[in-house]
Amino acid sequence: MKTPFIVLEGLEGAGKSTVLQVITQWLEQRGIDYLTVREPGGTPLAESLRELIKKDWDERVSPEAELLVMYAARVQLVNEVIKPALAQGRWVIGDRHDLSSQAYQGGGRQLSKNMLAQLSDMTLQGFKPDLTLYLDIEPAVGLARASARGALDRIEREALGFFERTRARYQELAAADPSIKTIDAEQTPEQVKAHVLAVLEAQWPS
Amino acid sequence: MKTPFIVLEGLEGAGKSTVLQVITQWLEQRGIDYLTVREPGGTPLAESLRELIKKDWDERVSPEAELLVMYAARVQLVNEVIKPALAQGRWVIGDRHDLSSQAYQGGGRQLSKNMLAQLSDMTLQGFKPDLTLYLDIEPAVGLARASARGALDRIEREALGFFERTRARYQELAAADPSIKTIDAEQTPEQVKAHVLAVLEAQWPS
Ligand SMILES: Nc1ncnc2c1ncn2[C@@H]1O[C@H](COP(=O)(O)OP(=O)(O)OP(=O)(O)O)[C@@H](O)[C@H]1O
Ligand SMILES: Nc1ncnc2c1ncn2[C@@H]1O[C@H](COP(=O)(O)OP(=O)(O)OP(=O)(O)O)[C@@H](O)[C@H]1O
Ligand SMILES: [Mg+2]
Ligand SMILES: [Mg+2]
Repeated sequence: MKTPFIVLEGLEGAGKSTVLQVITQWLEQRGIDYLTVREPGGTPLAESLRELIKKDWDERVSPEAELLVMYAARVQLVNEVIKPALAQGRWVIGDRHDLSSQAYQGGGRQLSKNMLAQLSDMTLQGFKPDLTLYLDIEPAVGLARASARGALDRIEREALGFFERTRARYQELAAADPSIKTIDAEQTPEQVKAHVLAVLEAQWPS
Repeated sequence: MKTPFIVLEGLEGAGKSTVLQVITQWLEQRGIDYLTVREPGGTPLAESLRELIKKDWDERVSPEAELLVMYAARVQLVNEVIKPALAQGRWVIGDRHDLSSQAYQGGGRQLSKNMLAQLSDMTLQGFKPDLTLYLDIEPAVGLARASARGALDRIEREALGFFERTRARYQELAAADPSIKTIDAEQTPEQVKAHVLAVLEAQWPS
């Protein structure tokens, strides 16, 4: 039996990295072997692609180029790291995955759903998380949290409308897919944690 | 009227960069304004992607990741450099373009024709060179020329079978598309030059 692949999704500052800790603690208490990864990134090549995508350039970055770099990083991580780990019986917890491209490049950058679907199918070939926790947050609230932490990168400095379109696409996709659970990320950290643990316990009872 | 986009294709050491000089000389003699570009590369982001793809990694590079990086670099160059230059009335001469992905990632790496066609359609949306000069050469002959010039990169160090499959795909695609002219690249430089000039004069008589 394939071990689970769990993904955290949401806008900047929604609390993905914070929830990741909640999940790994829960796994450790159960003595489960796991691997955490982040996207874009998680392999040497994919981390280099991450740097290129976040960097400021003296040229416009074409939305299609951004999209293809994201998928290049994703397919490298999935083929070389995530699938082998799952095959070895380790759980994998991902900080962002395919849904981020659907939301940011599809919703935010307004690339066609058809292009997104084709790329997703051709690269992932049906590979899909067992559970996605979507941390829903007002863009301004998340950005305020994220900017308190340090300088914003090329994507984080987009206008609020970009993040509003991204959030709307996240919400639309979460509503259509029962494997995506929406969590109100504007609650206190304790409330978010309790909700996350409830979802985990419901899907994998101890 | 859109000015022409001319592309040079062929295995390593076939003589693409040498023929590029023949073409730019011909354009200069006619007082034509032109731009030369190379793939992958030709913009700051695309040149960084080129470095990543040629570099040696302590991990296997997934063929799909390689393919997507190539298309990310291509779409950035086409959208940000080639199309704007053509729109300004400049001729564009490219050292490699889409046919390289069809031949190397399709033929060499054996990725599916369907994947290649989908990516090509979605990123180029029908944009296509007016003329492609395919310099046909025995892989060993081309590699000997290229290695005399310096150390070989990650792709150039592939086994001969890789380049034989790449050449076979080049030949197959060249035979099917009248805008691709095959030139025997094992001839002397003078013979290659004469053939190239004959093709140019036939298509754009002075
Ligand atoms: N529920 C919460 N309420 C208030 N602050 C929170 C909450 N969850 C996380 N934070 C704080 O908000 C900031 C951003 O959280 P975190 O780094 O987990 O978000 P993220 O979604 O991983 O962001 P990014 O997309 O930038 O990686 C951190 O300083 C964190 O401590
Ligand atoms: N027709 C020819 N006969 C013999 N040598 C040639 C010929 N054309 C080019 N060369 C030499 O072969 C070497 C490779 O040529 P060139 O750099 O033009 O090939 P290329 O196709 O651009 O290679 P790469 O794919 O590595 O960029 C150079 O040293 C060049 O001078
Ligand atoms: Mg984070
Ligand atoms: Mg060359």
